[in-house]
Amino acid sequence: MNIQNALADRVTSLKASAIREIFKLLGKPGIISFAGGIPSPELFPINIWSELLKEITLEEGSNAFVYGVTEGYAPLTEIVCGINAENNVGKDFDRTIITTGAQQAIDLLVKSLVNEGEGVICEDPSFIGTLNAIRSYNAKLFGVEMAQDGINTEKVEQILQKENIKLIYTIPTFQNPTGITQSIEKRKKLLELAEKYDCYILEDNPYGDLRFKGEPVPTIKSMDDKGRVIYVGSFSKTLAPGLRVGWITGHESIIDRVIVCKQVNDVHTPLINQMLVERFIKKYDFKAHIQNGCELYGHKCALMLECMDKHFPAGASYTRPEGGIFLWCTLPEGINTQPIFEECIDKGVAFVPGSTCMVDIEAPSSCFRLNYSTMPDDKIEQGIKTIGKVLTKYVK
Amino acid sequence: MNIQNALADRVTSLKASAIREIFKLLGKPGIISFAGGIPSPELFPINIWSELLKEITLEEGSNAFVYGVTEGYAPLTEIVCGINAENNVGKDFDRTIITTGAQQAIDLLVKSLVNEGEGVICEDPSFIGTLNAIRSYNAKLFGVEMAQDGINTEKVEQILQKENIKLIYTIPTFQNPTGITQSIEKRKKLLELAEKYDCYILEDNPYGDLRFKGEPVPTIKSMDDKGRVIYVGSFSKTLAPGLRVGWITGHESIIDRVIVCKQVNDVHTPLINQMLVERFIKKYDFKAHIQNGCELYGHKCALMLECMDKHFPAGASYTRPEGGIFLWCTLPEGINTQPIFEECIDKGVAFVPGSTCMVDIEAPSSCFRLNYSTMPDDKIEQGIKTIGKVLTKYVK
Repeated sequence: MNIQNALADRVTSLKASAIREIFKLLGKPGIISFAGGIPSPELFPINIWSELLKEITLEEGSNAFVYGVTEGYAPLTEIVCGINAENNVGKDFDRTIITTGAQQAIDLLVKSLVNEGEGVICEDPSFIGTLNAIRSYNAKLFGVEMAQDGINTEKVEQILQKENIKLIYTIPTFQNPTGITQSIEKRKKLLELAEKYDCYILEDNPYGDLRFKGEPVPTIKSMDDKGRVIYVGSFSKTLAPGLRVGWITGHESIIDRVIVCKQVNDVHTPLINQMLVERFIKKYDFKAHIQNGCELYGHKCALMLECMDKHFPAGASYTRPEGGIFLWCTLPEGINTQPIFEECIDKGVAFVPGSTCMVDIEAPSSCFRLNYSTMPDDKIEQGIKTIGKVLTKYVK
Repeated sequence: MNIQNALADRVTSLKASAIREIFKLLGKPGIISFAGGIPSPELFPINIWSELLKEITLEEGSNAFVYGVTEGYAPLTEIVCGINAENNVGKDFDRTIITTGAQQAIDLLVKSLVNEGEGVICEDPSFIGTLNAIRSYNAKLFGVEMAQDGINTEKVEQILQKENIKLIYTIPTFQNPTGITQSIEKRKKLLELAEKYDCYILEDNPYGDLRFKGEPVPTIKSMDDKGRVIYVGSFSKTLAPGLRVGWITGHESIIDRVIVCKQVNDVHTPLINQMLVERFIKKYDFKAHIQNGCELYGHKCALMLECMDKHFPAGASYTRPEGGIFLWCTLPEGINTQPIFEECIDKGVAFVPGSTCMVDIEAPSSCFRLNYSTMPDDKIEQGIKTIGKVLTKYVK
């Protein structure tokens, strides 16, 4: 008996996220990790959450432990609609549902919108979780390279002219992995293209609130008056990823189907998690909490860039993000960052090699991703110095 | 613009679970609901859970709120393997992962195993959440009727001979919705058929520990020495459904792919939920907790049957479960229970009309499902009396 025969086609070539595989290497004590993608745990108000969880269970009693509605815990949905409103997200035709993290939001949207064989355009590099979700439904990925102001929209249009594209996936603000923010002109252009070629935009915005420099750029969803944009938000970067609470705001005809997919996926997002987020935001100063994050990440990003300026060879170029938690480093063409990654791991420093985030994961990449939100200042200095030393061996 | 065009084929004909729609009707104050499917909330040890949640957040600190591994929180996996061992589940080739409820387990397994157009055999009636999950991947459902000792295995073989079947889905113990327990002979036969026709068995066992009468029957998984059976367990009925914690135990080559699907689905099951289940079972007497449930449900089931014997017309027949939380009532052929359901709702009593649980949800059904685990004794008496009165108008 060959168990491999048991598998559906859609999963046979699917590879585990290399980033999550990297996490398994990080058990090594004292390792300096720039590979993560989480907010700084020092910002977690553990004592408050602890008290709130106790309070929730005592006040809500069994209501916190029975089945909840698939759409989400109504008081949390109300809070989310308030957050949306500040980003001008949510028209009359839209509806919002709570999801088990933004990852579930993306999975359910790909499932609800994209047939096997249909195409999805995305930034290249992009968020590996989305790339794998798209692959897992046997959809076709079309990666488009990034400029300093976001995805190359001419290339997007060329693909739209030739291929059967259902969805454009974009993280326009503080993109993962590059930290790049798409210009307003490109946002308008993408919306125009979605209209012209009758496809939809999935705007993934987990980092948008974490701006520490420059001026806010309107969300694509805020400019959408027809229902072309489906917006995904998350509390993973503004509160904590382990809670697994995110949301989708999109045209009600789409959300209506997404709800049925969520019903068969996990029935509903666990209640105590939804209640914790709701109570924290209602009772405490969520804006101040986010502001603390912005200040910390602004400081850490500046520190990391300063160290890179000092220790990285001249041939290395990198983005200078205005927010979010990642920056992206590019080495001269032809240099593969995979062996550099392995050498750095040996020396006790981790990052994410670029190939991991590419549509073509098999091709070598001369890029890598650095996260600056979680390591203490001295580790940032030490870790960047170590990477710099390794890089000078490869970059002449 | 027609938003309907946005949708993938797999979801266009998908209908929301009628059971979850029924729940929305239950807001009516004082309604007696036999429509639910949860353990009795009076058994929830709220004060203990409240203390444990506080303790977890204080002791684990940020570890409870960062990303966890997709496979599940290791100490919980260990607990689950212990529970499995008591049911003789888990061979050397097997691997166990934690899921966000058993519903996610089922969804991920259908996604990982069944191609669009391939067939899945299931009991008819069956658990609506699974039927919809199968539909949502464009797989073909083949329903097989139940006898008092479980699914008709001759019919199963007839279908296997003719169709391209990948999976047999069964809830062998205290089936939802019928309460029926499959005989050991039929379990062996199903395993034999899976071998002979090279397909797999998904054994869904959320109720197995809730036996209040009769002798335990071995799980199908316990007889599987080749990896033909994928076993799904859940804490939704033995602890609380709102926690959303379940698991899968199956051949490692299959679980390996399921993990990748879970990675792109929700990254991992929320940590505080996994930690709560783990600590409760480690620190308290989980077996006594389950035993309390068995005693309560045994009592409530007997009471409900006694009331049915007294108030239901002679033409109504029903199952007499030895465990679990449901029983199944069948009226003479040709009687549609949908209008009976509507009349009962008007009179303040809810149940689940049979059509909801059938592979062909459009066909009228002469059956309905009753849950006995949640209502207090006086409501059981009153509710069954009310249903009985309505039934006598329809059953001559």
